[in-house]
Amino acid sequence: MTDFQNVINTIYNNLKSATDKGIVADYIPELAKQKKESFGIYLKHINGNNYHVGDWDKPFSIQSISKVLALSKAIAFEDKKIWERVDVEPSGDPFNHLSLLEHENGIPRNPLINAGAIVVADILVSRLNNPKQDFLNYVRDISGDQTINYNLKVAKSEKLTGYNNYAAANLLKAYNNLNNDVEVVLDFYFHQCALEMNCSQIANAFYMFSNRGKCINNVAHITLSQVKRINAIMLTCGFYDEAGEFAFEVGLPGKSGVGGGIVALLPDDFVIVTWSPGLNPKGNSLIGMQALEQFTTKTNRSIF
Amino acid sequence: MTDFQNVINTIYNNLKSATDKGIVADYIPELAKQKKESFGIYLKHINGNNYHVGDWDKPFSIQSISKVLALSKAIAFEDKKIWERVDVEPSGDPFNHLSLLEHENGIPRNPLINAGAIVVADILVSRLNNPKQDFLNYVRDISGDQTINYNLKVAKSEKLTGYNNYAAANLLKAYNNLNNDVEVVLDFYFHQCALEMNCSQIANAFYMFSNRGKCINNVAHITLSQVKRINAIMLTCGFYDEAGEFAFEVGLPGKSGVGGGIVALLPDDFVIVTWSPGLNPKGNSLIGMQALEQFTTKTNRSIF
Amino acid sequence: MTDFQNVINTIYNNLKSATDKGIVADYIPELAKQKKESFGIYLKHINGNNYHVGDWDKPFSIQSISKVLALSKAIAFEDKKIWERVDVEPSGDPFNHLSLLEHENGIPRNPLINAGAIVVADILVSRLNNPKQDFLNYVRDISGDQTINYNLKVAKSEKLTGYNNYAAANLLKAYNNLNNDVEVVLDFYFHQCALEMNCSQIANAFYMFSNRGKCINNVAHITLSQVKRINAIMLTCGFYDEAGEFAFEVGLPGKSGVGGGIVALLPDDFVIVTWSPGLNPKGNSLIGMQALEQFTTKTNRSIF
Amino acid sequence: MTDFQNVINTIYNNLKSATDKGIVADYIPELAKQKKESFGIYLKHINGNNYHVGDWDKPFSIQSISKVLALSKAIAFEDKKIWERVDVEPSGDPFNHLSLLEHENGIPRNPLINAGAIVVADILVSRLNNPKQDFLNYVRDISGDQTINYNLKVAKSEKLTGYNNYAAANLLKAYNNLNNDVEVVLDFYFHQCALEMNCSQIANAFYMFSNRGKCINNVAHITLSQVKRINAIMLTCGFYDEAGEFAFEVGLPGKSGVGGGIVALLPDDFVIVTWSPGLNPKGNSLIGMQALEQFTTKTNRSIF
Repeated sequence: MTDFQNVINTIYNNLKSATDKGIVADYIPELAKQKKESFGIYLKHINGNNYHVGDWDKPFSIQSISKVLALSKAIAFEDKKIWERVDVEPSGDPFNHLSLLEHENGIPRNPLINAGAIVVADILVSRLNNPKQDFLNYVRDISGDQTINYNLKVAKSEKLTGYNNYAAANLLKAYNNLNNDVEVVLDFYFHQCALEMNCSQIANAFYMFSNRGKCINNVAHITLSQVKRINAIMLTCGFYDEAGEFAFEVGLPGKSGVGGGIVALLPDDFVIVTWSPGLNPKGNSLIGMQALEQFTTKTNRSIF
Repeated sequence: MTDFQNVINTIYNNLKSATDKGIVADYIPELAKQKKESFGIYLKHINGNNYHVGDWDKPFSIQSISKVLALSKAIAFEDKKIWERVDVEPSGDPFNHLSLLEHENGIPRNPLINAGAIVVADILVSRLNNPKQDFLNYVRDISGDQTINYNLKVAKSEKLTGYNNYAAANLLKAYNNLNNDVEVVLDFYFHQCALEMNCSQIANAFYMFSNRGKCINNVAHITLSQVKRINAIMLTCGFYDEAGEFAFEVGLPGKSGVGGGIVALLPDDFVIVTWSPGLNPKGNSLIGMQALEQFTTKTNRSIF
Repeated sequence: MTDFQNVINTIYNNLKSATDKGIVADYIPELAKQKKESFGIYLKHINGNNYHVGDWDKPFSIQSISKVLALSKAIAFEDKKIWERVDVEPSGDPFNHLSLLEHENGIPRNPLINAGAIVVADILVSRLNNPKQDFLNYVRDISGDQTINYNLKVAKSEKLTGYNNYAAANLLKAYNNLNNDVEVVLDFYFHQCALEMNCSQIANAFYMFSNRGKCINNVAHITLSQVKRINAIMLTCGFYDEAGEFAFEVGLPGKSGVGGGIVALLPDDFVIVTWSPGLNPKGNSLIGMQALEQFTTKTNRSIF
Repeated sequence: MTDFQNVINTIYNNLKSATDKGIVADYIPELAKQKKESFGIYLKHINGNNYHVGDWDKPFSIQSISKVLALSKAIAFEDKKIWERVDVEPSGDPFNHLSLLEHENGIPRNPLINAGAIVVADILVSRLNNPKQDFLNYVRDISGDQTINYNLKVAKSEKLTGYNNYAAANLLKAYNNLNNDVEVVLDFYFHQCALEMNCSQIANAFYMFSNRGKCINNVAHITLSQVKRINAIMLTCGFYDEAGEFAFEVGLPGKSGVGGGIVALLPDDFVIVTWSPGLNPKGNSLIGMQALEQFTTKTNRSIF
């Protein structure tokens, strides 16, 4: 049997002192403050065992990783009806490009690019009574940790600099694919992206995607069929225009965020979360990508 | 010598009873109210003579025709510096497409597509003390008519439904090509587009582009070199993705608006304005385009 | 344990009499001759058992399915060096679009779009002594069937109507990404696509991708790491601009061809091949896609 | 009256010793051999006077300038029917991009990009008995010089390196917009582009576009209406993605070629030809563009 602790220790030591650690996102002061040296790995096995190393317990801004959690909640409400408003095809374009939106009549290519995630946010704003609080409670529940919170400074900064997201939301509105007010939807969306969690909490929250829909407290939030589809979307669309590369090099469904976090999982086996704030030119954690490549190479574990 | 009155009368009679008059823009209630039957032609010759027929004296929403007037004011302030923020190439795309903005780092392809006109509006907001009032005064002055005004209902409606323009302005902001607040710039822009003028007033305002920069009261607002360049931009970019077609069929610099107006001119010769609210699928006045084709065919007058 | 025979019988009966069977490709006379009623399924389990129903033993033109076999041979020669000439990202575009080639300096987005497959063909032309015969022998060996052959009529027809492929090959040549003559490479490519195989032979040939690189006679043609990467490419790029949809609905690596065949597989478990010549608007077998969706739903087997 | 000789002498002296003369095209050995120092200007006035300076009498490869001559011949045959196969809109893209061809069903955006010029060549191949000889005779006739010839070395080199044109022609064939064989059409096209002429001969050939369709020997090859439309196309499409810039800076209909030639004209006034082999990054003669800008500035002559 694989000695996971040994594997992640080795990877941690291999990469801890890498000279190129990428570039920390600086479009928001709070993100720019992150230390490039931070590095943590957390692995949660389906059999209940947990393995961790480094800064696994330090909270960071999960950013786009939150899109998968929002999607799971929206799918629980809408099931297949959600696909009338957002597609499931990879975009082949950077995460914030609006081009395809125009060529496809306002239907975002998938729910993990910004425009698609804003449609998902719009659904949650329509469906939840107190959208921000209810979504926060959902994340706390599936993570089994009531201390998780939004970083309000980050949310506010996102709002002040989020011109691209305003552009996307207005374009969706122009195509009649946004039911609520732009301001209301983006306020929710900026908070969602500003969730602060550590590697362990993220692993707990994503546990349900490796465990057929049942979360750590054994509650089934979504069906097995819904889990499979979310995993498929993570695999094909989870890393912007580097999605093919991640599927190719790592071979696991996963999602990255500009805060430097990456979560990946193997169904019926494990969830693994890495955190290293420096990004590669495509916007994914440079060291995190390498850690996951080494992990699947060393353990021979991938969906392929 | 050409009997202009006779020519425009003939064209008017040819087209007055056309069965296909296009589709009146209906994205704003005030525009939708326009009568499809309205049809007017006004020709102002450089020798001082004026010729008109039909509804030439009924005011309508000049919409994108205002972009040329705003451009002339911005060029008077900035001269060549304006071209650091907006290009002069035809777009080959519909007027509201944002795609090219993304592929060209936030530099709109030309000042007559919406994104480019919003950059021009941003310049005027920076340069004018009371932007809306000062620009209105400028238009009144060059038209020689102090009664010209914004239609505030139209301006308000534009704001309420202008998601595409909000998208464009936010995208420009994301690329650091908008110095003022999105709301402030768009408030100015929506008013500018909501100017209400009749064919005669537009002909007077555009007189300077046929008269080497000197307007009807003989004041030179821009230089001859600036006039030539604005005319070149009208010719290559004045009709969205139908610009080549207009150059080809009509052969005059010109500009259309979704209110159904078209202005065209021959340097050192005349300005002609047509108004018919029904639009063709490219967003240009259907009957207006035909009237101008007939005019240049009958009079053998074009820049080519 | 799953009763595979029962499952494929049920699916066969469900779909045999479907009223909408799509449209048979008709750009080549030989393909147009195919009967829309043809329908077969073949499942080869890794434990040695085989299950089949319908027209599983009737040969058909495998077309783009051959791209995976050519890729496996090229990777055996080049390993990672192949990725200097072709990328691994989904295209988001129809299979024959050349647009991306121009925007990405002649590097095809992945080896399963036509342009990428032509680069792979170029590699085989460079590497094999008698390219067409050697590749045929390779396919015969991994299929365990020396009777497999090219359909020369189909190859010739492809050549006569293959203007799109000539365009792609010339564009690659313009970007210095084709080492051999256009005619020589396309002659090889048209033969490769004109391979005629039945469901059983395809299942045997693709067995190695479900069996860690070892083919049916236990010879390892490619490494486990190479297998995983080919499977990842099939998942993300195997169905043109319907790749996300297939990953989402079926959840297996796979590849379709315009002859109506689809092959899909679950690592360490099985290979399944369907054949029904009618295509959906995206160019994938309509009934085949439905059969595979039903199969993964009924057996709960997918990589996710 | 303007002292044209003095003006072109001044411009010649201004630019003769410019340090940056651009880069000589080197994709064909024969073009690469051109001396960067070559520089000539020729002006033919409608009143019969001619003015020239520098290397005006040295023959060079006219390349894309030939597209206008071929277009004039095709329009003489087809008149408006030609516009069913090629559009008149600016492309906004480099001259050899195929992208738009795919998005617009095989209708090239205009007859001056390569794909459009290949459609024009296809028309001439269909219409002329001995296409290459007949077209050569046409050029000789309108230039009044029977010594003009194809440079066969250039034509052969174009053929050997013309992968982009082969790609375009095959794509047109795929869209059913090429009636003759790819090889036959391109053989004609490569010869057409390989015409060798000096500034004076080009000015004579283009005289008809400034003279309402009548060429130097007073024969009317095309109608006034056809002339105007060809001039409009030159203005909007004659300089690839620098067409707007040329209209803006120079303000004359014109056409450039990668051999370093540029021809421009003012209807009822003059034709001017410049030759300087070094190109700017957009593929137009660097010094030629500057010479024409200086010319229209100094003489205040432009269509605007």
